[in-house]
Amino acid sequence: MDKKLLTPGPLTTSIKTKKAMLRDWGSRDEEFIDLNHSIRKSLVKLIDGEDEFECVPVQGSGTFAVESMIGSLTSNNSKILILINGAYGQRMKKICLYLNRNLIEYEIPEDEIHDLNKIEKIIDENNDLTHVLVVYCETTSGILNPIKNIADLVAKKNKSLFIDAMSAFGALSLSCKDIQFDAVAASSNKCLEGVPGVGFILVKTSTMEKAKGNSHSLSLDLFDQWQAMKKNAQWRFTPPTHVLAAFYQALKEHEKEGGINGRFIRYSENCKIICEGMKEMGFTQLLPKELQAPIIITFMQPKNANFKFKEFYNALSNKGFLIYPGKLTVAETFRVGCIGNLNSKDMYDALKAIKDTIKELNIKLT
Amino acid sequence: MDKKLLTPGPLTTSIKTKKAMLRDWGSRDEEFIDLNHSIRKSLVKLIDGEDEFECVPVQGSGTFAVESMIGSLTSNNSKILILINGAYGQRMKKICLYLNRNLIEYEIPEDEIHDLNKIEKIIDENNDLTHVLVVYCETTSGILNPIKNIADLVAKKNKSLFIDAMSAFGALSLSCKDIQFDAVAASSNKCLEGVPGVGFILVKTSTMEKAKGNSHSLSLDLFDQWQAMKKNAQWRFTPPTHVLAAFYQALKEHEKEGGINGRFIRYSENCKIICEGMKEMGFTQLLPKELQAPIIITFMQPKNANFKFKEFYNALSNKGFLIYPGKLTVAETFRVGCIGNLNSKDMYDALKAIKDTIKELNIKLT
Repeated sequence: MDKKLLTPGPLTTSIKTKKAMLRDWGSRDEEFIDLNHSIRKSLVKLIDGEDEFECVPVQGSGTFAVESMIGSLTSNNSKILILINGAYGQRMKKICLYLNRNLIEYEIPEDEIHDLNKIEKIIDENNDLTHVLVVYCETTSGILNPIKNIADLVAKKNKSLFIDAMSAFGALSLSCKDIQFDAVAASSNKCLEGVPGVGFILVKTSTMEKAKGNSHSLSLDLFDQWQAMKKNAQWRFTPPTHVLAAFYQALKEHEKEGGINGRFIRYSENCKIICEGMKEMGFTQLLPKELQAPIIITFMQPKNANFKFKEFYNALSNKGFLIYPGKLTVAETFRVGCIGNLNSKDMYDALKAIKDTIKELNIKLT
Repeated sequence: MDKKLLTPGPLTTSIKTKKAMLRDWGSRDEEFIDLNHSIRKSLVKLIDGEDEFECVPVQGSGTFAVESMIGSLTSNNSKILILINGAYGQRMKKICLYLNRNLIEYEIPEDEIHDLNKIEKIIDENNDLTHVLVVYCETTSGILNPIKNIADLVAKKNKSLFIDAMSAFGALSLSCKDIQFDAVAASSNKCLEGVPGVGFILVKTSTMEKAKGNSHSLSLDLFDQWQAMKKNAQWRFTPPTHVLAAFYQALKEHEKEGGINGRFIRYSENCKIICEGMKEMGFTQLLPKELQAPIIITFMQPKNANFKFKEFYNALSNKGFLIYPGKLTVAETFRVGCIGNLNSKDMYDALKAIKDTIKELNIKLT
């Protein structure tokens, strides 16, 4: 049975997207080259970046794309401020440690957003700072970081902003006409509703041009990949052809739904249904409404002794819904995603399954 | 139309393998964890490595796996001899240059195999040598390197052998009971007939255990990936779930065909049909029979002025067959692959398409 994935990804995709994988493509064949070119063009368009941005895809998971972005677009002379309020900020820090990059971290609790005054102070105190790294939506908690305010500040200070927009891209707006940034990394299998296996970096042409020789890795060398694609529009190394064929189809469906705005509306509705329904049952949501992104929602595990996450998970799985464990370091939680090819009805069905489960397991919620 | 891929990969896969991708999996769900575990077990079994080898998969193309192997299993104190007779040997050198590894290269022409006496001499002259890197089948030419002889020599000299078996794994035998090596890298989408998007490294447990802290990259850190999988059998970062589901199905079909031996027989028959048929038409094969692996065959481009590769390629493509450009640095060639889910009939059909094409384009072969 194909279960509904209420997770931060991989997600439920449309049957058409999956069916696009029922064909084998020659990776150096004209038809595939055209498909690849079209994907890159669509992605640049999603940030209104036609005039000044390049799209460079990278095989692998989102982390591969983020590492490729940091490793290729910063150098040993860079000094990087990382804004951390969850596991993905931590992961960027870990990447910088592998790369031996000079870094400053500004870490806050997972259910809070960064203080802009504090960011400004850090930047002012560190004249040699070159880059600021931020996560758009931290799926650790599901928090929506104030990307616009952060970008405005970083631009005012003339620093370079890199965004990990993995779980936000395609559903939360990120127009380069409105938000100033030099590079953003994301992937096929989040709000764009493709299947996992490929990520991409949208980067200012002027930033890309300066990136030669930075990368620590051949496979993750964005500059080298960009140069190759400029020359013949082909991937340097075997691309995940089926994943890209699915991605192409997923992007068509994204456009048909009304692009970023259309998807934002559906996900917001999904999120609202889950939040309200869970509240009604007596669950406590971690974040206040204004900090909650319509991507994934963190709930506190009930204090009731009958609640055991694994049992709860399995019971829901048997009913056809996969939820996600919590990732908070400070509290026992679980997460319910509201992205992917799911609609209001799926959310109501999920709520019903949760309701039935707490009844079956005799979990008392107060 | 789904064209037959006479290439070194991505390849033609079975419809069952592709259909395995028509389902969305939760990457942290028990069912997916079981599937992943089964794949790793099957791969270890293919080298008879149950007692002493680990299988660690890595997202991305084959190059990602090779870089992960070299970057994670050698260190700054290593000194590496690379045996080069084609582009994939060159690529390992390129990886070592990114990694700043101490290296010696022994490069010979693309249509020759390395001189064992010369290898022995290099090893003897370099006491501090720690590793030897070799490509099993170099798809640049299609040459079969004498892996057993090289492995015996390297073992006698007490050095560590790493094999890039990308295009050989699954069709050419590589039992660790017969051939001594410490690590081998390969991928899902060559002779194992899965779809592209994931590679893997089979590595001796004793070698793996010493690999902590070597890797230059978080994404490609084999030790870290291995540790995570030992802990909970899960991937560190989002795996390409659909690609892995296809890989699982492809491995079942591999076993059903009689494993490595069964596949070797079919590919050898495919190779024989192509070589003989092309010879009959008047094409010249680059390699002598004894150096030709049953994977991909290089043919010299006819001297006839009517032969233009692009025209020839397009005409064959229109007939439903994709061949591959040459990669030799020394001569104008093209390549015809004989791997993937293709049989004798497909080979005869391909030959007929080639015959019709040379007639149409009025290419004279002498």
